[in-house]
Amino acid sequence: MGGSLGLALRGRAGVGEVRGVDPDPEALRVGAAVGAITRAAGSVEEAAEGAELVFVATPVGDLAAVARRALAAAGPDCLVSDVGSAKAGVLDALAPSERERFIGGHPVCGGERTGVAFARSDLFQGATWFLTPAAEARPDLFQRLHGVVAALGARPVAIEARVHDRLMALVSHLPHVLAAALVNQAAATAPGGREALRSAGPSFGDLTRVAGANPPLWADILLANRDAVLEELRAYAARLHDAERALREADRDWLLGFVAEAALGRERLRAADLAATERPWRLTVAVPNRPGAISEIATALGHAHINIEDLELRPGPSGGAGELGLLVAGEEAAREAVRLVSARGYRAAAVPAPE
Amino acid sequence: MGGSLGLALRGRAGVGEVRGVDPDPEALRVGAAVGAITRAAGSVEEAAEGAELVFVATPVGDLAAVARRALAAAGPDCLVSDVGSAKAGVLDALAPSERERFIGGHPVCGGERTGVAFARSDLFQGATWFLTPAAEARPDLFQRLHGVVAALGARPVAIEARVHDRLMALVSHLPHVLAAALVNQAAATAPGGREALRSAGPSFGDLTRVAGANPPLWADILLANRDAVLEELRAYAARLHDAERALREADRDWLLGFVAEAALGRERLRAADLAATERPWRLTVAVPNRPGAISEIATALGHAHINIEDLELRPGPSGGAGELGLLVAGEEAAREAVRLVSARGYRAAAVPAPE
Repeated sequence: MGGSLGLALRGRAGVGEVRGVDPDPEALRVGAAVGAITRAAGSVEEAAEGAELVFVATPVGDLAAVARRALAAAGPDCLVSDVGSAKAGVLDALAPSERERFIGGHPVCGGERTGVAFARSDLFQGATWFLTPAAEARPDLFQRLHGVVAALGARPVAIEARVHDRLMALVSHLPHVLAAALVNQAAATAPGGREALRSAGPSFGDLTRVAGANPPLWADILLANRDAVLEELRAYAARLHDAERALREADRDWLLGFVAEAALGRERLRAADLAATERPWRLTVAVPNRPGAISEIATALGHAHINIEDLELRPGPSGGAGELGLLVAGEEAAREAVRLVSARGYRAAAVPAPE
Repeated sequence: MGGSLGLALRGRAGVGEVRGVDPDPEALRVGAAVGAITRAAGSVEEAAEGAELVFVATPVGDLAAVARRALAAAGPDCLVSDVGSAKAGVLDALAPSERERFIGGHPVCGGERTGVAFARSDLFQGATWFLTPAAEARPDLFQRLHGVVAALGARPVAIEARVHDRLMALVSHLPHVLAAALVNQAAATAPGGREALRSAGPSFGDLTRVAGANPPLWADILLANRDAVLEELRAYAARLHDAERALREADRDWLLGFVAEAALGRERLRAADLAATERPWRLTVAVPNRPGAISEIATALGHAHINIEDLELRPGPSGGAGELGLLVAGEEAAREAVRLVSARGYRAAAVPAPE
């Protein structure tokens, strides 16, 4: 991930200098050779010194410690972010003052093959990139991160760290557990053996495609998001238990409802997906000069499932209160956004964005 | 399925007359218009009279009753088959004498859209088509079915009905339950709502693609294969229970092994898939003139996961003992087949098939 980030920062966001730090000197050598970094640093401190933006792309267990070192070594206007797939744990491990300059991020993009040799500058193109600012996060740094992420070709989405973790537990971490369990059961017991996969039709292949990718990475992701994954896993086990009861009692009505509910659910999720193609509206919010205002607005919209397509902050005179411009998809979302933001005491208005 | 079968029988297998019977007169009208049938019959009896081969393509709950009516109405040399996705229940519902002329089948092919208007003559091209002859099945009728299935472009695979049902429970029916449960959980609780699907990355989409297709059909399939699905569902729930324990106790070693086992399992299943491209060998077996010989040989090979790519029966003089020719993939499979068949008292030999 670090390698792709370096290539994309240089190639797409026009960043002049990208320093890399890695315990493996070979990774740094390859990173420099492919153009992912312009300079190899000998330590986190050396890499962070004088930087405007630091991305921490370590295994999840090391994120907080490395982020803290970067925060201490970098200047007071340097933003530190990360690319981990569980967000609340890192924020909890940092002090409130550290959370002013640390804003977590999570680019949702595949790439099972790790290593700088597989780095691609277009890895983030079109990908959702979650941003999880804490209440303490500095608005100007949030805007900087938002802008860089958009420049990399990704779609920045602000969301509360805990909501993010529950979402990922449900749509990614639990599915990985389910896929691995299914493959393990098939490999251990498959009646018909080698025929199994070929004869399976699409459902088995679909359900097991993600199984078994990068065991150490996935063991750590599951542990980093343990509480949320456990909650989803328990809820899921309860659903299977209900299905088992219905099968045992040959309860056709229940089974019919179970499959029909899934048909409806898929339709609803698909409709939500299509909603994103609506015409953009521009929301303007007067923001006071105090910490937390932007993250409060961003997460209020995130809660209401309103995505911020673009974000711009115009400071007021003498660095005081300013104006926040937001792009959201569709009139309905815009009007709801005005209502939500107004209810929190901000002056806001929305108009259709110029085509 | 009936419509596609009619089109394929006429267009690919060169069958001159295909009679159709359906409680819905409109389906028969459309079937005749698209060329899936040459004549609409008013009853199962009228359709079966004088036929060489009857395919029963009703909802699974009606299969045995309709098959029995067809067997009674058709002549003594007519083969009756079906296309249901659970096989043991139908065989159990028939009398041993009926199982001489009834040989179950299951073409594994998608086509979520039902109805004769969506019929396609190429639906079976390249698909696995399971054949589940009972011990009583007549060898000549098995060969006829095998030949017709191959002529439709499908790959006939002989397998015991109960093994088939366990296989399908594992690779198709359980995955459908898992996918529906996941969609239902996501639709009911999705944190982040409309962002869920878009941000999910590939795993959620993969795991839920089959969810919710055709609720009445799937409720009936799950019930028709209830025992096997229950067994797989219970085993699966136990695996999830283990995963929950490991997460709760932050047992990284277990999680690592769990994902690594899935990586190995996927590799093994993929390797099995590739094995099918090996060079064909020809197996010749002297078969005595008694019922059950061919199904015994076919299912013995099926048990050992050796697939019969092609099959030909040459009757001996005066209809007595004959010679069974089988194509299997690769020398290893051929030698193992000779060993298995010899152990059951048949004379057998194998040579590489001419290119």
